[in-house]
Amino acid sequence: MTEMKAPDSARRSERSRRAIYEAALALVGEIGYPKTTIEGIAARAGVGKQTIYRWWPSKAAVLLEAFLDMADQAVQEAGPGGYELPDTGDLEADLRTVLRATVDEMNTPVYDAPARALAAEGVVNAEVGAQFVERLLEPQLQLYVTRLRAAQEAGQVRGGIDLRVALELFTGPLAHRWLLRTLPLTHEYADRIVDFAVNGLAPRD
Amino acid sequence: MTEMKAPDSARRSERSRRAIYEAALALVGEIGYPKTTIEGIAARAGVGKQTIYRWWPSKAAVLLEAFLDMADQAVQEAGPGGYELPDTGDLEADLRTVLRATVDEMNTPVYDAPARALAAEGVVNAEVGAQFVERLLEPQLQLYVTRLRAAQEAGQVRGGIDLRVALELFTGPLAHRWLLRTLPLTHEYADRIVDFAVNGLAPRD
Repeated sequence: MTEMKAPDSARRSERSRRAIYEAALALVGEIGYPKTTIEGIAARAGVGKQTIYRWWPSKAAVLLEAFLDMADQAVQEAGPGGYELPDTGDLEADLRTVLRATVDEMNTPVYDAPARALAAEGVVNAEVGAQFVERLLEPQLQLYVTRLRAAQEAGQVRGGIDLRVALELFTGPLAHRWLLRTLPLTHEYADRIVDFAVNGLAPRD
Repeated sequence: MTEMKAPDSARRSERSRRAIYEAALALVGEIGYPKTTIEGIAARAGVGKQTIYRWWPSKAAVLLEAFLDMADQAVQEAGPGGYELPDTGDLEADLRTVLRATVDEMNTPVYDAPARALAAEGVVNAEVGAQFVERLLEPQLQLYVTRLRAAQEAGQVRGGIDLRVALELFTGPLAHRWLLRTLPLTHEYADRIVDFAVNGLAPRD
């Protein structure tokens, strides 16, 4: 029976877990990945550092789970079907919806700062980069594969092409602008990229 | 007459300048941007740190000029026309050549390590990012605008579209794979991106 937690204990654990996620995301956004420490996260969350070490092996693990949790919450707020890209039958309209939402997210400071800090660390730290891709980025990219496959079956996307490559026509330009800060990320920009990319993947006569 | 340097002095200055560039690129690739210092660059280049401070206001300035110099040397090795993208009249073939060369560069450690370190710093440091874009990246992107404009005039690219946006269909996906380390950067990948993107920009019937 020792493994069963009393309701109060479970509630306390859940509260601690959430405080740790929020502290980790806030700290990495404010002072960057290299200076963020387990001790700093613990102090900000108001928990002992042993609590963090008991649940996670490293600060990278805490941060990745904090992001995954943020993504889960966004999905739950989106309601049923949140784990899929919209499919109204109109590929271009659906991808405009998705890319506009991505632009909005990239322009939201509470998301931008920690995501930017984690992405920057992944750029120079192959281990963090691999975790970032495997746990956070690739599952999101696979949603595009699913949507593009449905479009392919509906005859709206050229047959026989590699959809895992094709999706990068949508995600690559946005990430380029976001990470390298070349020009503003706007809905108009998202719409143009969708226009060009959907046209590029269309069946050839 | 004090501004004229004797030949020996000019040669020494040129040698120092090159040693400083090489030291800066090597150091930032090995230990990252945050830990690279003017003192460290001076020690590795075998010059006094006052020599560096006399010529550059900051380590960011040294690094950016080291990159610009590396780019200039690559252009000089490429011979006449090196400051333009190839124009054989075949847009798809020309862009395949360019994107394959970009992939090769991204896969070359001596280029990859310092470029990655500088790009990562630009992701989290807006000032470095702005310098990186203004001095290094945007001039390279403008070469695509020139080549796409020629293709537009030849009727190979849709009229009236924003070419500064259009070029990101080529550069965005490559940068996405390179920076975020999702999947390998290969010539085959470059060819597919060019295929999709050129098709996406083609005139509509």
